[in-house]
Amino acid sequence: MSERSPRRIPEATVARLPIYLRSLLEVSEAGTATVSSERLAEMAGVNAAKVRKDLSYLGSYGTRGVGYDVEFLVYQIRRELGLTQDWPVVIAGLGNLGRALANYRNFGARGFHIVGLVDSDPGKVGDRIGDLSVRHIDELAALAAESHPAIGIIATPASVAQDVADRLVAAGVTSILNFAPAVLSVPDHVSLRKVDLSIELQILSFYQQQQQGHGVPGDDGDTPGGRVAS
Amino acid sequence: MSERSPRRIPEATVARLPIYLRSLLEVSEAGTATVSSERLAEMAGVNAAKVRKDLSYLGSYGTRGVGYDVEFLVYQIRRELGLTQDWPVVIAGLGNLGRALANYRNFGARGFHIVGLVDSDPGKVGDRIGDLSVRHIDELAALAAESHPAIGIIATPASVAQDVADRLVAAGVTSILNFAPAVLSVPDHVSLRKVDLSIELQILSFYQQQQQGHGVPGDDGDTPGGRVAS
Repeated sequence: MSERSPRRIPEATVARLPIYLRSLLEVSEAGTATVSSERLAEMAGVNAAKVRKDLSYLGSYGTRGVGYDVEFLVYQIRRELGLTQDWPVVIAGLGNLGRALANYRNFGARGFHIVGLVDSDPGKVGDRIGDLSVRHIDELAALAAESHPAIGIIATPASVAQDVADRLVAAGVTSILNFAPAVLSVPDHVSLRKVDLSIELQILSFYQQQQQGHGVPGDDGDTPGGRVAS
Repeated sequence: MSERSPRRIPEATVARLPIYLRSLLEVSEAGTATVSSERLAEMAGVNAAKVRKDLSYLGSYGTRGVGYDVEFLVYQIRRELGLTQDWPVVIAGLGNLGRALANYRNFGARGFHIVGLVDSDPGKVGDRIGDLSVRHIDELAALAAESHPAIGIIATPASVAQDVADRLVAAGVTSILNFAPAVLSVPDHVSLRKVDLSIELQILSFYQQQQQGHGVPGDDGDTPGGRVAS
């Protein structure tokens, strides 16, 4: 790991790395070996100076007049994000959203390996989804002892989300992605992120309203966070 | 609309407004009338100076030693984001993800009113989801003539997403939120945003890896985009 940059990477940069990675994989699929910061910036919806600054945290500076080596940059970002290792994931709550997530191909493609599905509904226990059967949430400890999930995804109703989070933590999960519309408490050693599927609609609403007669959208070249126009 | 600030709002600020709104609604539910920029910053995962700068674009400056009036700020953000009007939304693709989105309560709470559900699968046409029946996608033009959806959500497989986008545009939709893992082209007058549900997992992976022995997470007080630890 001596190659790894010792610099702390700002949160905002961390949040853009998956966007760069997605853009690079598209470039790579098109068979292109190098990419300029300008092209990457355009694809990721930020400005080129920000791309260069962000990538400098990874110790990646590109070559003047040539750009970045796509494959090497993919490797660097994957390594920095921890995607060169396999993360075992457990999904709690197998309603429509949980099922959609269990079938979501992008997870596997990014190194996330779903090792368990749990629900409290006896009507769902035993259902086959992909390669797995849904197990009762009371079996979470047993499941954790077998397959050691590091990451838990909560796709339950809000009313039970805290209880599920507590069970995931007790089972040894140290990162939680919460899709339930609930504010959760977890111990300090557990990372918690929340997804609100309505956020993007609200951003679209802004631009929709602008279209309808409030001038042009602002553009500081800095579209933050996981979702960009493409 | 003479109250409306004439300033262009940077994209990064627009993307944070829904996060502030969510935080303010939590504060409001707790019965608190005013909120400091520091508290709002903490809830939204950014720094206080950024909160004050962002809100200044809305012409909102708070009161020294008191903070911001919660209800008024909620109104200002909702107005700026266009959430004081009702947006008719059509969802294309009623697999698990489409069904989850059709049932997602946060949409209604933010002014998004689902007026149509379309799918190409005859096995799904006629299914009741909430108050609506799934219609065949060939009926999209008829549906649009009745209920004029402004926003289309694509929750189809990637292979048909471009065709569905073309149909939505032909039906008069001017904003598209794409959940399909596909790169879409739309005319210039159409706003397009893409959601990749694996982005948040990748960010979690970074912090998980950090926990496992690569020092502490970077923290520049600037967590971008729709999803913050809470």
